[in-house]
Amino acid sequence: MGLVVQKFGGTSVASVDHLRRAAGVVARTLAQGRQVVVVVSAMGDATDRLASLARQISTSPGRREMDMLLSSGEQVSVALMAMALKALGHDARSYLGSQVRILTDSVHSKAHIREVETSRLGAYLASGGVPVVAGFQGVDAEGEITTFGRGGSDTTAVALAAALGADECQILTDVDGVYTTDPRLVPEARRLDRITFDEMIELASQGSRVLQIRAVKFAGQYNVPLRVLHMSGEGQGTLITYEESDVESPVVSGIAFNRDEAEITVTGVPDRPGAAAAILRPVSDARIQVDMIVMNSPRDGCVDLSFSVGRDDFAEAVALAGHAAVALGAGEVRGNDTVAKVSIVGVGMRTHAGIATRLFETLADEGINVGMVSTSEIKISVLVAESEMESAVRALHRVFLLDRPDSP
Amino acid sequence: MGLVVQKFGGTSVASVDHLRRAAGVVARTLAQGRQVVVVVSAMGDATDRLASLARQISTSPGRREMDMLLSSGEQVSVALMAMALKALGHDARSYLGSQVRILTDSVHSKAHIREVETSRLGAYLASGGVPVVAGFQGVDAEGEITTFGRGGSDTTAVALAAALGADECQILTDVDGVYTTDPRLVPEARRLDRITFDEMIELASQGSRVLQIRAVKFAGQYNVPLRVLHMSGEGQGTLITYEESDVESPVVSGIAFNRDEAEITVTGVPDRPGAAAAILRPVSDARIQVDMIVMNSPRDGCVDLSFSVGRDDFAEAVALAGHAAVALGAGEVRGNDTVAKVSIVGVGMRTHAGIATRLFETLADEGINVGMVSTSEIKISVLVAESEMESAVRALHRVFLLDRPDSP
Repeated sequence: MGLVVQKFGGTSVASVDHLRRAAGVVARTLAQGRQVVVVVSAMGDATDRLASLARQISTSPGRREMDMLLSSGEQVSVALMAMALKALGHDARSYLGSQVRILTDSVHSKAHIREVETSRLGAYLASGGVPVVAGFQGVDAEGEITTFGRGGSDTTAVALAAALGADECQILTDVDGVYTTDPRLVPEARRLDRITFDEMIELASQGSRVLQIRAVKFAGQYNVPLRVLHMSGEGQGTLITYEESDVESPVVSGIAFNRDEAEITVTGVPDRPGAAAAILRPVSDARIQVDMIVMNSPRDGCVDLSFSVGRDDFAEAVALAGHAAVALGAGEVRGNDTVAKVSIVGVGMRTHAGIATRLFETLADEGINVGMVSTSEIKISVLVAESEMESAVRALHRVFLLDRPDSP
Repeated sequence: MGLVVQKFGGTSVASVDHLRRAAGVVARTLAQGRQVVVVVSAMGDATDRLASLARQISTSPGRREMDMLLSSGEQVSVALMAMALKALGHDARSYLGSQVRILTDSVHSKAHIREVETSRLGAYLASGGVPVVAGFQGVDAEGEITTFGRGGSDTTAVALAAALGADECQILTDVDGVYTTDPRLVPEARRLDRITFDEMIELASQGSRVLQIRAVKFAGQYNVPLRVLHMSGEGQGTLITYEESDVESPVVSGIAFNRDEAEITVTGVPDRPGAAAAILRPVSDARIQVDMIVMNSPRDGCVDLSFSVGRDDFAEAVALAGHAAVALGAGEVRGNDTVAKVSIVGVGMRTHAGIATRLFETLADEGINVGMVSTSEIKISVLVAESEMESAVRALHRVFLLDRPDSP
């Protein structure tokens, strides 16, 4: 039955009892005749507690030292997980990123993997052992410990699965799969059996927080089948695949939303090359992430330029755009920081016309006014008033029939 | 002024405040124009807490996994110490045992150091940096993490001092030096300005718990001046040197004691070669540490063989000796598990006669009966009833004038 990488996140190994249960899940997988490589995160809030110690000592602890500090969390959990597996009668052994070794660049706190050596893990697997690998961490060419940023254990799991040619990479977490939208908002939301990497990336970046987006991209790149599964190991979870399913894909697979948006519009921007860039450049130079960008057709030699930013960056972005607008001789700068983004995502959109029309009709029927709109091949995002976001999501969920498993 | 290794134990780095104070001690040493290599243990009871997690998971976690688990404690404290030093404006950098690297054999949980590579630390020191090295841990030739056993951070400090040719290795701890005896027992006990390695080893193995004995032996072997100092960095502490002081050494430097002793005597042992071994072999085969051994002169073709063991091993040792006695046709086996050992230690004994006589007279004057006696060149140990141990220590401390700095 081949090789599976099973990754347990912080909540799945938050206590000794959790660790034992996670070891039980691994044992059941082994009992199916599969080989397993286990990847674990730091226990529960261990990473937060370590970061808090650092903050008490220094306002600028330095990224190298933070990596040294935080990577100790996974060191604890791999050792304990290996002990728990041994207590169940399995031959298990813990490995740090530096021992595997997972070679990265030298960008502390957000390192990228360059190479995963497989000889040591491979030999141990071949001998019947269960390697337990520390997530989130690697080592650079000089032997310095590096980390991959929050959620980086997913990246470790996918990288190992790719390097070892695993049949599947399983992310065991506190939800039992990827949902059509947030069930807390829409009770009819249902778990998706499968979803494509592209859809998952759009859903993740739009606010569904099940998986680290970098890990999903990585999995897509190396074509590693990724499965989000409940930490109990029960159920089928959601399989994230490169290939679209044989059956016709649903038009819309999921609905993502994000409350913390802000919209800025500069009116009367001269319609000449470089004018839009002149407004957006100072914003991005300030490391403010610009999400949606919309420009209307020119009228009287001028255009209106609208863009959205995270709500935290609103005031600074308005000020920067205002300065640029004055320098350009543009009109006024207007802003609204009580907007939210709603996105419908689905690979089926590629082959279905009229989805956007249906979206606008649905929202109009609900009396919801639509602000900025942006579209990609598999996604349509709109800004709405934050107060209307919930009813927008519910209406779209109903109309696109996401609550029916056999939705077209 | 050269290079100093400063080692901070668990109590010296038990909290963020402790860490900051320890960093302040390092900063003051740097301000004296010295180079410093810092060695730190795990914070406070971190090691105990980790060990407790392991025990909850498995009764036999395995030494490799325990090393993986416990070594994470020092990883936390080196990172935080480096941050604290950087917050004081110093260039500091943390190093794990595997990064230095401190190469050991592969005996997990009690590894021995084979080699300390100095190129990396040396280059960093030369650039003006302060390396902060994780105590207690090393790495074997296969890249496996090893540890040196409890108190192993002292060993790390001494090994680094030896490898780097440091002028002094300072052990900063919660006492301000080595005392003539335990001040809790004898209020007149005083701090020794200096003591030889040999004396320190006898005092340490006899119950003074300031330094790990292996570290002291190591320091003696490589002739590294070792100083026990209060964690505040204040005072002179006690310098432990290979060379005896120019001034005449005091006859007795210190008095050690240990309550947890037990005495076993086998009477009527046939006076023939191998008889003593036949009784002691099964005891040592059971990994029971035999401390003192005394055999009287033969009488009627028989001898009495007495030996002492730790009190915890008393019952087992009596049973084993009893079996052996029957097989040998020896007499009876008697035991007493309410004895204590008192030792006087001093290099001056080598050149002073009559010290043992003075000891016996002193105890006789106090009405204290002396059991087994054993002597070495610089130590005389006696067993007394546990109930009389304290008055024995006080009387000897008084007679050998340890409370007077100018004692002969």
